[in-house]
Amino acid sequence: MGRSMVIGRAADMKALYFDGEKAIYREDLKIPVCKPGQSLIRIILAAVCSTDREILRGYKPDFRGIMGHEFIGEVVGSEDRSLIGKTVVGEMNETCGTCIYCKTGRKSHCVNRAELGISRDGCFAEYMALSTDLIHPIPDGLAPEQAVFTEPLAAAMEITKQVHIDPGLNAAVIGDGRLAFMIAQVLSLTGVSLTVIGKHPEKLALFAPYAKTVEYKEFLAGGRYEKPAPKECFEYVVEASGNESGIKLALDIVRKKGIIILKSTYAGETGLNLSVLPIDEITLVGSRCGAFEPALNLLASGKVSFPPIELYELKDHEKAFSSRAFKSGFTFRLV
Amino acid sequence: MGRSMVIGRAADMKALYFDGEKAIYREDLKIPVCKPGQSLIRIILAAVCSTDREILRGYKPDFRGIMGHEFIGEVVGSEDRSLIGKTVVGEMNETCGTCIYCKTGRKSHCVNRAELGISRDGCFAEYMALSTDLIHPIPDGLAPEQAVFTEPLAAAMEITKQVHIDPGLNAAVIGDGRLAFMIAQVLSLTGVSLTVIGKHPEKLALFAPYAKTVEYKEFLAGGRYEKPAPKECFEYVVEASGNESGIKLALDIVRKKGIIILKSTYAGETGLNLSVLPIDEITLVGSRCGAFEPALNLLASGKVSFPPIELYELKDHEKAFSSRAFKSGFTFRLV
Repeated sequence: MGRSMVIGRAADMKALYFDGEKAIYREDLKIPVCKPGQSLIRIILAAVCSTDREILRGYKPDFRGIMGHEFIGEVVGSEDRSLIGKTVVGEMNETCGTCIYCKTGRKSHCVNRAELGISRDGCFAEYMALSTDLIHPIPDGLAPEQAVFTEPLAAAMEITKQVHIDPGLNAAVIGDGRLAFMIAQVLSLTGVSLTVIGKHPEKLALFAPYAKTVEYKEFLAGGRYEKPAPKECFEYVVEASGNESGIKLALDIVRKKGIIILKSTYAGETGLNLSVLPIDEITLVGSRCGAFEPALNLLASGKVSFPPIELYELKDHEKAFSSRAFKSGFTFRLV
Repeated sequence: MGRSMVIGRAADMKALYFDGEKAIYREDLKIPVCKPGQSLIRIILAAVCSTDREILRGYKPDFRGIMGHEFIGEVVGSEDRSLIGKTVVGEMNETCGTCIYCKTGRKSHCVNRAELGISRDGCFAEYMALSTDLIHPIPDGLAPEQAVFTEPLAAAMEITKQVHIDPGLNAAVIGDGRLAFMIAQVLSLTGVSLTVIGKHPEKLALFAPYAKTVEYKEFLAGGRYEKPAPKECFEYVVEASGNESGIKLALDIVRKKGIIILKSTYAGETGLNLSVLPIDEITLVGSRCGAFEPALNLLASGKVSFPPIELYELKDHEKAFSSRAFKSGFTFRLV
């Protein structure tokens, strides 16, 4: 420990490793050694999101390493002594600080970035080294099971950074998973009239306190898809279903001159007739990660609810990845 | 003439008629009879735009009628006596005033709209009847050959209505046709650093006073397409090429978190991997028609330049439609 950061160099740890094709549970990986400016974190909880699923489906075929980019942990080694022992969350992008994106306020798009669990070792492990300036202590009183939602909450709040939500209008969220839940939280806090469209009645039920809920199959009348009338359409549609049918539905339920926010990443092409965009003057806003500070502010406010989380041990990853919980996210418990 | 608007009921006129497959020059069509609230306009010039081309390619297979939606003409009959004898331009959408889009400031998206030359008789004719409230007298001193650009200028200015252009950033226009020219005019007036990318050196030369010009083939190094480095990319990219390769190029040259404005309508699907939108947080803004009033203000200011126009008689439509001028627009001279 301490300045030289050689903690645990010789010790092995458990981790979930991506070999280019699949996830492998290993117990023979070394506890990482921190470089200058990094801190060592003992992972407490690590959440799975759809990006991890896309990696298993071939989104990053060149990646080899420990998966995972959402976590909560305890700082066990740092040049910043005040951090040691603190429960923290951490941002996923280590950036260069010198490229055009870093210099213009877009560090999450740094061209030289190393992304946890996507292009460098991530957090599905007992320990992880991370740049100290990406680490944020969690607000007092927040449980790890809540703080682990910092990353998806920040991603949800990227929407309100990118798009001005007029609270007098209406919005739909497509998807009933974990990210959709956080998006519904953020949108409901604006006061906008909110509808959530999903395929799973048991998951949709969780949204009922915050939104009108509609099953996707309601758009199928007699087996045929029925496009809603303009009055039943939405000014804002957030596509967070994580599957290809979501964007098609979004284009059908958005009002003309409306805004679709795309949160889902798919591996593969989508055959869409994009001429609807200029004709109906639709705006598509691609939206990804958000800033942690405002998310932590909102978490500290106590105004955000959380969906239930399912906990798995790393060694049970196959069961976890094949469970129905997969789509809505599940969480590895490391301690 | 006068209140009953029966002018010319018995007389024939020349017009270019779409029969569902092709344009037909006819001399046997009746001069239209105005309904209450309409004025009769003798067409002076009528411009061809890419929408007309798309109609000839099958964009509106159910349409039968006189083509054309951009014109300048003289009011020869109107309940509003002050209009008679005035040289005017006119908006293309007759709207219902009662649908959700009319009631929320989006009348160009009226669900019951009748569009000149797209769903009702247009302006490739000697006479046309049009709702009086869609008619705008042109500013003093403006030649018909300039005022005929009101519609494409309004469409170009829809961009600055939809998107805030930060003059400290850079922008690219893809396309070297007539609409691209008007877009370059509008963007250059913001002071933004402007580049125009086109395939036709002789057309690109016209943009040189307003923008840096680049030939599309410069992106092809040794026959291979070369994606530019982030520094050479653009914060705003306007796709106005009118062809499918434009959107692919736009996605390659836009910066992360940048904005693509889509002006081209294509008949057919575009196979694109849309996951680049959330990953790079790209925004696609579909953009169509704009308001005439600000376009007429800008025309009156004398700060807007115009590309040369090629004039054809209606009966020479085949020669005109098959000429190279087609893509950049040409103009029918009716008188």
